[in-house]
Amino acid sequence: MDGFAYANLYTMDLPPPAPRWGGFPPYYFVGGNNDPTLIPCELLAEAAASVLRREGASLAIYNLGQGPQGYPPLRDFVASKLAARRSMHCTRDDVAITSGSGQGIDMVCKLLTARGDTIIVEGYSYGGAISKFRKMGLNIVGAPLDDDGIRMDALEDILKDLKAKGVSAKFIYTIPTIQNPTGSIMPLERRQALLRLAKTYGVPIFEDECYADLIWAWDAPPALYALDPTQVIHIGSFSKSLAPALRVGYLVAEWSALSLLIALKGDSGTGAVDQMVVAEYFSRFYDDHIKRLSTALEGKLDVMEEALRREFGVSVETFRPKGGIFLWLKLPDAVDVRKLIAPAAKAGLVFNAGPEWACDADAAKSYLRLCFAMPSTEVIEDGVRTLARVCFEETGIPVRSANLENATR
Amino acid sequence: MDGFAYANLYTMDLPPPAPRWGGFPPYYFVGGNNDPTLIPCELLAEAAASVLRREGASLAIYNLGQGPQGYPPLRDFVASKLAARRSMHCTRDDVAITSGSGQGIDMVCKLLTARGDTIIVEGYSYGGAISKFRKMGLNIVGAPLDDDGIRMDALEDILKDLKAKGVSAKFIYTIPTIQNPTGSIMPLERRQALLRLAKTYGVPIFEDECYADLIWAWDAPPALYALDPTQVIHIGSFSKSLAPALRVGYLVAEWSALSLLIALKGDSGTGAVDQMVVAEYFSRFYDDHIKRLSTALEGKLDVMEEALRREFGVSVETFRPKGGIFLWLKLPDAVDVRKLIAPAAKAGLVFNAGPEWACDADAAKSYLRLCFAMPSTEVIEDGVRTLARVCFEETGIPVRSANLENATR
Repeated sequence: MDGFAYANLYTMDLPPPAPRWGGFPPYYFVGGNNDPTLIPCELLAEAAASVLRREGASLAIYNLGQGPQGYPPLRDFVASKLAARRSMHCTRDDVAITSGSGQGIDMVCKLLTARGDTIIVEGYSYGGAISKFRKMGLNIVGAPLDDDGIRMDALEDILKDLKAKGVSAKFIYTIPTIQNPTGSIMPLERRQALLRLAKTYGVPIFEDECYADLIWAWDAPPALYALDPTQVIHIGSFSKSLAPALRVGYLVAEWSALSLLIALKGDSGTGAVDQMVVAEYFSRFYDDHIKRLSTALEGKLDVMEEALRREFGVSVETFRPKGGIFLWLKLPDAVDVRKLIAPAAKAGLVFNAGPEWACDADAAKSYLRLCFAMPSTEVIEDGVRTLARVCFEETGIPVRSANLENATR
Repeated sequence: MDGFAYANLYTMDLPPPAPRWGGFPPYYFVGGNNDPTLIPCELLAEAAASVLRREGASLAIYNLGQGPQGYPPLRDFVASKLAARRSMHCTRDDVAITSGSGQGIDMVCKLLTARGDTIIVEGYSYGGAISKFRKMGLNIVGAPLDDDGIRMDALEDILKDLKAKGVSAKFIYTIPTIQNPTGSIMPLERRQALLRLAKTYGVPIFEDECYADLIWAWDAPPALYALDPTQVIHIGSFSKSLAPALRVGYLVAEWSALSLLIALKGDSGTGAVDQMVVAEYFSRFYDDHIKRLSTALEGKLDVMEEALRREFGVSVETFRPKGGIFLWLKLPDAVDVRKLIAPAAKAGLVFNAGPEWACDADAAKSYLRLCFAMPSTEVIEDGVRTLARVCFEETGIPVRSANLENATR
């Protein structure tokens, strides 16, 4: 074979080609993956068989013959879960199923933004969203965070400054509940302040709650959407609460916006069996599943934090998340994690470099994100030891002799 | 609720909002739907349960931990099916799974086209593709068809003309096997001529074989891709051969192009359970399923053709398809089917108006496409009678007294 003969006709600005799939390296600490041992295979098999026996005939019709908004029993489940856990008052009519929350991000951007528009994003934020926003040519203004999420004083300065320049920001993209990557939960008072500020300056809020199912203690304040649905478009996902290979997310908005978002979905529906299996399984087992999963994840987080303390000692600052599957951490200012990427890869280790998870790359140069859900506790411990060794070899950090011994043995 | 408060920030060029889903009208003759009674619910339930018991744990990882090209057993099945039925020599490495063939169309356009580019499309073609091409701002040149697909003399004129104008067409989009909407199969000699012409003028071929599984007689010549993979990007789907609510299609191309197409996919994978169920079921039952489905569909086509002869007499010209799920037909020149859309809708009947399935809308004003897979034979007969009545009331056609009696009773 000579290969496709028309490379001369390719369009500009192509991404790099996909490599041939070579599997994961041994220490794979990136990506929203989950723990394979916690997938309830038998219960999912039963759920799938049961729903296909009962409703399989409807697969013959696009969208199961029930329109582009998604499988109604799944929308019912989403509405009831959001009522119970996020204090959101919505029904199946307010919910649209998406092919993962990434599609939800695409849809909201298509509704509100055009190339060159300005948006406000948390200073550290979900790398996948930042990279989508950049690809769409949006001008990203980063809003500084503290342990409770966006700092309201800083946000007000940004909004004032934009107003002075005559710029209307198209939305504030926030992950208030298990912030990605910092793992914080925004307190109620700050949520209320955020809504007030956003209303004053006429900027809608784009609320991403992909991790809000996985909170160690069930104590999160209501979703921003619950506090004022007219100001907020809300997205979520089953990738973290159940499984990311299922491509099932959801979007909640008032109908005037939702009806346009559905029209912008741009596919011919989200995979039906994926939707049916989630609805069938979670309608019965959501609470149990979430409890079991969160407990196991918090245990893995403990293992990772302990390993970091053991290997890095005082050279690491960890931001213990209140839920989720990732740990955000900071190495000493002298460490630029971008310089660790290649040697870590050589040692079979991949991590999310802070600069890819930040609006201002340089300001995040000593930060990184480690995902702890997929790897076993043994891999977590070996991996953190490997990271410490690589870091020491490249930067002389961590310096304590005990760590040094561990790191070089 | 006051509705979302930021309509002032919406971007330009929004599509019309989705209406609240109100179900299908009684005579629904559009869309690539299938016959619900022909979905093998029990076998799909068993397939789903079996694959989830065996491999469910891998759902914990994006793309089942097997990379963005798709579930390997499904790619194996696609490759073996294409070898057996389309004479294509490919392996799992040449196949990428897509979320329906629509995503495949998006991907190919992203690889080869930019706004303002010119493409060549069969004069009558898939309305969904035409509408995508228009949305992307492509300049569509229609190539005239006869009973064997694109006319080579006309295509050569087009290519010569474009060359004279200094325009490089980015691809020729063709549905050579069960052409949509005309139902033709391009003979081998013409396929060879098409490849020669395309090569001479330096234009790649974008081959869409979404209906090629459903051929009444297994006598189709090899796919264009089989004849020269360096000239062709090939797409297909399981929407027609199994079920459209499953969002599973595929794309076959030489790796130099495929690796870029995968990078352009733009989601985080195609729904895994959908993929797993298709692979598990079709790896065992494809031949039986296709035989049973094709036989049933051909029977429904007979019912529709007979009803059309009965109700329209000599006032209809039908283009009996060699497979698939739709019938293309022509009413007398005096009938503009666009004027039938509203009164038909009032009578509970929807059809694909020829102008939406054509590069030159006006030239297709007396044509329409009727899909026969989903409706029962009774609905087909009642629906065709309703169509004749509406047509008679609006245009005085069909005129024969016998039909008149039928149409008005």
